[in-house]
Amino acid sequence: MKLITFQTRTLHTRLGALVDNFAVDLELLGAAAGLTLPDNMLDFIDAAPVSVQRTRELLSKFEGNWPLNVATPVANVRLLAPIPKPRKNIFGIGLNYVEHVAESARTLDTSKELPKQPVVFSKPPTTVIGPGDAIEHNAMITQQLDWEVELAVIIGATCRRVGEGEAMSKVFGYTVLNDISARDCRRAGQWIFSKGQDTFAPMGPYIVTADEIADPHNLDLWLKVNGKIKQNSNTRHMLFKIPALIADISSAITLEPGDIIATGTPSGVGAGMDPQEWMWPGDVIELGVESIGTLRNPVVAV
Amino acid sequence: MKLITFQTRTLHTRLGALVDNFAVDLELLGAAAGLTLPDNMLDFIDAAPVSVQRTRELLSKFEGNWPLNVATPVANVRLLAPIPKPRKNIFGIGLNYVEHVAESARTLDTSKELPKQPVVFSKPPTTVIGPGDAIEHNAMITQQLDWEVELAVIIGATCRRVGEGEAMSKVFGYTVLNDISARDCRRAGQWIFSKGQDTFAPMGPYIVTADEIADPHNLDLWLKVNGKIKQNSNTRHMLFKIPALIADISSAITLEPGDIIATGTPSGVGAGMDPQEWMWPGDVIELGVESIGTLRNPVVAV
Repeated sequence: MKLITFQTRTLHTRLGALVDNFAVDLELLGAAAGLTLPDNMLDFIDAAPVSVQRTRELLSKFEGNWPLNVATPVANVRLLAPIPKPRKNIFGIGLNYVEHVAESARTLDTSKELPKQPVVFSKPPTTVIGPGDAIEHNAMITQQLDWEVELAVIIGATCRRVGEGEAMSKVFGYTVLNDISARDCRRAGQWIFSKGQDTFAPMGPYIVTADEIADPHNLDLWLKVNGKIKQNSNTRHMLFKIPALIADISSAITLEPGDIIATGTPSGVGAGMDPQEWMWPGDVIELGVESIGTLRNPVVAV
Repeated sequence: MKLITFQTRTLHTRLGALVDNFAVDLELLGAAAGLTLPDNMLDFIDAAPVSVQRTRELLSKFEGNWPLNVATPVANVRLLAPIPKPRKNIFGIGLNYVEHVAESARTLDTSKELPKQPVVFSKPPTTVIGPGDAIEHNAMITQQLDWEVELAVIIGATCRRVGEGEAMSKVFGYTVLNDISARDCRRAGQWIFSKGQDTFAPMGPYIVTADEIADPHNLDLWLKVNGKIKQNSNTRHMLFKIPALIADISSAITLEPGDIIATGTPSGVGAGMDPQEWMWPGDVIELGVESIGTLRNPVVAV
């Protein structure tokens, strides 16, 4: 199931499922069947797996024969980030693909050694933008705006000291995330100012529920700048796999439903190019993860 | 005005003001006067300055003659952190007191040079605990649990590219925060795992509104472990003052009402002692900031 957050022509923010190019409004679908479904993604995740099961049944029952006002051609709505306002900072994982560790050590101030434990950082909720939204380039602050395609994991249940064996059962679904950095804004090594600026987490276009992804560790992921391929790899090259990330973070930090873990980027970032390449106003960034979806965002001067 | 979040005997979480050792329930106080007041701190901050003004008037009108059920002796309620669940990670500022920069350079992996820009990091909402709550010591994860007394600033209005000149007008109030670290949990320099573990941000006991603090840059702050003084300084020694912190962060990251900035700690942390000292189960940590309040938390094994 593909879950979306979308805005109608009347600017209401709604929760939906994407079915055959229709945005199906879940609260209205539930109401048409005399049932209650949440009207936003975080409540939907909180109510999982009941919400998922109920929605699946209703979608199957009504598919192609939608009640009045329930389904809108997706071209007629605006897709927002699936979680427009996360409840806490997004967890990012640095240096989690082997070749990216090497390119970072060449050009940034990171170690050549593979990390022995996940390198965790965070991106505030104010970083999140959706499909088509503008990535802000503020020339007063950065001349080194860089891209990073990542598979993002959406947590579906509270995780406190969860072992690797049960970790995957806590995953609600997946989406695509561009972990944007202003490389010249790192401070005493801390990355939050560099990676935490407004608009630095384009996310979407939808959440694919975990049941539809047979193996999240065997998905191609790629990123293009102005149509030219820059990153092209596969999630199998992750150093710390998803169960290890969940087990590690939750060993000390309780993960909650709706929390997001951006699992790191493969090689091919701008900082690793020779000469280095950066994003500039007018650029268009496209990125995707196999079976999850693609995102496209312009860069604009602010 | 001192604003509290408290739990009644029936375990309801309520918003209150602390007046003459009474917890005055603000929603009920409003209702007794035929007016609406919020029932939680974040909504109250969102509604500032109207909420503050209205509350001040009602407290003045009813003081000492409280309507039935509105006021409870504070000894009969449980104080929680004033913001038990922040909407995003707390912003922390590292290396923001000159003498602490020196002690950190001696014993941690930080630079001797004073930072040229604020060193920003974050602590997830799940770090927050209130007065008297237990600081968790997990011996599987750390043998270097350290303390840091800090003045915390509560943001009262959206800040996007706010200049230093107007920054103080965006401050809602102040509270006390213990920025606890597991010093042996830093990873590739990133501090979030070290500083972001559950229970690592004791906060409270109340928010003092900004109008009551004539000069937040001239407040004594101190911390004791088992009654023995460890930190003892004054906020005048902050390297980057509050207007500079707000201007700097908001230059790239939008600050929102209810956001919290922990402004850094003076010297006297355990890592800086010779020999180094750490917190252990059974210890009691007391800390305070002049005119703001004091906090007391036990350390417990988990």
